[in-house]
Amino acid sequence: MASHQITIKDIARTLGISPSTVSRALKDHPDISVETRRQVQQLANSVNYRPNALALSLRRQKSNTIGVVIPEMVHHFFSTVISGIDDIAFSRGYNTMICQTNEDPEREMRNIQALLDSRIDGLMISVSKNTIAAPHLQRLIDDGMPVVFFDRICEDVVTNKVIIDDFMGGSIATKHLISIGCRKIAHLCSPDTLIIGQQRKEGYITALQEAGIPVENRYIIQADSKEAVDENREQLIAIAPEIDGIFASNDITAIAAIQILTQNGYRVPDDIAVIGFGDGPIATITSPTLSTVEQKGFSIGEEAARMLINKIEEGPVPLEYETHIFTPLLRIRESTRKI
Amino acid sequence: MASHQITIKDIARTLGISPSTVSRALKDHPDISVETRRQVQQLANSVNYRPNALALSLRRQKSNTIGVVIPEMVHHFFSTVISGIDDIAFSRGYNTMICQTNEDPEREMRNIQALLDSRIDGLMISVSKNTIAAPHLQRLIDDGMPVVFFDRICEDVVTNKVIIDDFMGGSIATKHLISIGCRKIAHLCSPDTLIIGQQRKEGYITALQEAGIPVENRYIIQADSKEAVDENREQLIAIAPEIDGIFASNDITAIAAIQILTQNGYRVPDDIAVIGFGDGPIATITSPTLSTVEQKGFSIGEEAARMLINKIEEGPVPLEYETHIFTPLLRIRESTRKI
Repeated sequence: MASHQITIKDIARTLGISPSTVSRALKDHPDISVETRRQVQQLANSVNYRPNALALSLRRQKSNTIGVVIPEMVHHFFSTVISGIDDIAFSRGYNTMICQTNEDPEREMRNIQALLDSRIDGLMISVSKNTIAAPHLQRLIDDGMPVVFFDRICEDVVTNKVIIDDFMGGSIATKHLISIGCRKIAHLCSPDTLIIGQQRKEGYITALQEAGIPVENRYIIQADSKEAVDENREQLIAIAPEIDGIFASNDITAIAAIQILTQNGYRVPDDIAVIGFGDGPIATITSPTLSTVEQKGFSIGEEAARMLINKIEEGPVPLEYETHIFTPLLRIRESTRKI
Repeated sequence: MASHQITIKDIARTLGISPSTVSRALKDHPDISVETRRQVQQLANSVNYRPNALALSLRRQKSNTIGVVIPEMVHHFFSTVISGIDDIAFSRGYNTMICQTNEDPEREMRNIQALLDSRIDGLMISVSKNTIAAPHLQRLIDDGMPVVFFDRICEDVVTNKVIIDDFMGGSIATKHLISIGCRKIAHLCSPDTLIIGQQRKEGYITALQEAGIPVENRYIIQADSKEAVDENREQLIAIAPEIDGIFASNDITAIAAIQILTQNGYRVPDDIAVIGFGDGPIATITSPTLSTVEQKGFSIGEEAARMLINKIEEGPVPLEYETHIFTPLLRIRESTRKI
């Protein structure tokens, strides 16, 4: 799957016709005029176009199995997405096989290949933090494999996608802190390579700007795991006397921050209000219970599975790719309830 | 895969030879005497023995993929087992495909079949709470498919197993409560169909008996999820004035109990000490932090993967089945630290 290989899209662009027309012309589909079929096939031959043999052979026989690739199943969000996928898949007669990448693009490639080798009917994927380009995924789609991205998408790959509005999530979390009187709000963020983290941060920055609150770079700490927060403990303690609110890009990070603040004599929410992101089960179990943004993992999984199975069952017809965007929901609990 | 089908084990029993001899005789293995081969093949014909064609064909071509069947990946324990499996598998050049059963034996069967259809080299499984018998798994093993059970095993299936000593886990948790002065210890337990839950309960009962403490049936409440604890709230509140300790069969249950006790004016650990089981990330995040029994999910996963891959790579030679038993570890934190 070298990235310089000619694709259906290249042929379509050259001839000024749609990729689905090219795809059907290559398969001698009767809906396509004899002349177009001849043109396409001639060009395909001359540029040495080779369809992905595996993907083509896959389309012949249904396995009633769908493949799912996720970064890590220890994340509660992904395990709830899987539950949503499983429920829809099971009810429609499909099995689900799941691979995890551990945020490693090489494992991701190997996982995808293993799933293809096992003759899946379609693929759902949430890419690793470190996956930048995805020409192999684009090629797969061009070759007719139904693929749905969820949550962590590749923006430049054209296919069905199910996401949550992370910008809005960051914005409503920050606006909530502002609404309870916070003016000096810190943000614990993800590395910038992660689009969803970037968007949450943009939501935070925009909400501050809209409220006329200056954005302080010192208040933005890159830490998206308990370990990372512990490593940045000194920086957090250094800004703690100034700040009155924290928006953390996930629940674990929020709770780790609360622990450090509490150990250093700060009261949450009275001195510093804290809001997380995700709404996993720990949000209701900690003390104080955690305000957070609900990520709707189960609904995302259901919708992604529905989209994928519809695509599998409608077959290789021309299609409109859709992006379904879920709206996140504010969950207000004790950690932002000032007395 | 009807359960009355003749197996290699049946033939072995009838002829008074080992199943591996039968297996090799059926394959005309040169190590087996011509006479034995003839005997075995004659009997196999006369009883209409049909090897699992699928399993046999699978053995011919390696896919370098191993299948894993687990009850639910939202359980932190199973997600850590998977991490251990993945690490060993990846380093030895295998991919891992995971299916979850949602504790449903029918989905379990379908998952196994889907993994077999996708030509896995071997299978790791932790059975659902509701899986009683597993003749289909025994048959798979008899037909030469490498299978390793982990954590939730089927006692009557003969194969490699990796487990933790749940009896000892229940015992050390209860003995710890006794050692800090508790005498009226309640137990939040799993349904009796779950062997590991049964064993933790037996560990609890035996520890009480060894300390000369009478076992009170009223103190044993069947509740192994947050929802179940909430449903049994009244029963817990009813015994709360009498008890001074709780051993819960998992961390979530322990934390749910602490919440109910705290809401009703009891102090943990001063009035009632609480210990869980599992040592997931929530154990260090809650307040008070939770004493618990470490389940060693990562090590269990690593060992199960090692066993399976060794079995895959050593091929269909006669083998000794092993059971590797991990020893659980006590993790003492604030919830049992009396002042």
